[in-house]
Amino acid sequence: MSDPGMRGSYSEHRSALLARLRRIEGQVRGIQRMVESDTYCVDILTQLSAVIAACEKVGLKVLEDHIRGCVADAVRSDDGEAKLAELVSVLERFLQVGHSAVSARA
Amino acid sequence: MSDPGMRGSYSEHRSALLARLRRIEGQVRGIQRMVESDTYCVDILTQLSAVIAACEKVGLKVLEDHIRGCVADAVRSDDGEAKLAELVSVLERFLQVGHSAVSARA
Amino acid sequence: MSDPGMRGSYSEHRSALLARLRRIEGQVRGIQRMVESDTYCVDILTQLSAVIAACEKVGLKVLEDHIRGCVADAVRSDDGEAKLAELVSVLERFLQVGHSAVSARA
Amino acid sequence: MSDPGMRGSYSEHRSALLARLRRIEGQVRGIQRMVESDTYCVDILTQLSAVIAACEKVGLKVLEDHIRGCVADAVRSDDGEAKLAELVSVLERFLQVGHSAVSARA
Repeated sequence: MSDPGMRGSYSEHRSALLARLRRIEGQVRGIQRMVESDTYCVDILTQLSAVIAACEKVGLKVLEDHIRGCVADAVRSDDGEAKLAELVSVLERFLQVGHSAVSARA
Repeated sequence: MSDPGMRGSYSEHRSALLARLRRIEGQVRGIQRMVESDTYCVDILTQLSAVIAACEKVGLKVLEDHIRGCVADAVRSDDGEAKLAELVSVLERFLQVGHSAVSARA
Repeated sequence: MSDPGMRGSYSEHRSALLARLRRIEGQVRGIQRMVESDTYCVDILTQLSAVIAACEKVGLKVLEDHIRGCVADAVRSDDGEAKLAELVSVLERFLQVGHSAVSARA
Repeated sequence: MSDPGMRGSYSEHRSALLARLRRIEGQVRGIQRMVESDTYCVDILTQLSAVIAACEKVGLKVLEDHIRGCVADAVRSDDGEAKLAELVSVLERFLQVGHSAVSARA
């Protein structure tokens, strides 16, 4: 967890983000019902792919606001280097999204 | 949607899959609360990465059961070719191989 | 390395695979020239994305031939379980393609 | 192609980038020899995964230099907004966020 004093840069898009996250929550519940009713594997995989794509789209939006907000502000002030280093490590993590879980097992 | 007569091959792992999906649902609700309380962007990105990783793990499990069940059965019977073709298209989608965003431009 | 007695299932597509791999080799050499002549970062990233997409497409083709050939043959004979286990581990690795490198550093 | 007047921000790491790209070129030629000598599919998939991982590492390095160089400079001057918009679109492409294969269907 980061410094609790730090704020999100996405306030302008908060309601749109929440709407998307609620839709994702609904999709996940839908997959639960599919599993309960023994739906064909391939249809479940399709829905999981849709959830992953939706999460990545939300992530890209948050990342975009973060770069335009937090990062740009920091670069204009004196805190640029630390913020750029943090951004690079976020990108590294987001690039490998979902994959460390697998590689941790390998 | 596929033929509604087709069943999932994951029945042996159904309760484990459901438990994971409920945990994912809880994570998505947690991200909603983070967005509502203006949590720092980077912490939200970290949580989104965790949800994506969890969905991919569930997908890999379903895929594994599908290959051992539906696909192997079909290969042993007469329906092998259609099932293998379907598997390849599922893999293409799930592995996002060839990432069409890029390949569409190439 | 696997048992050297095992053969590829892609012989029917060998010349197409080789043509694609030669094109990829040419793209990689093109990126070297770009780096030598100080080409703008974004153009280099675009070309790297194209190489990655091309490698993934080749991988999907090899995977497809492998499933239709080696895996289907094994399922029809007695060696099915070992081959399916190997396939699942290949998928796991291919799913995380390129990402273990990053997570190993994290 | 971008404005030919724009330069790369990676000049400090040029020789390291070139060394990596030459190694990737050698790996791609190695895969060609494997295909020519009918090497087992799974070993070819492993080598393709290694090439993809290596390309992503090079891309992450170029991206890091780009952010510290071109983007930070632009934010400090008047050209910040255009550069940030370009960065976001590069990230979208490089991280393949939202995988359009899936999202196109969703």
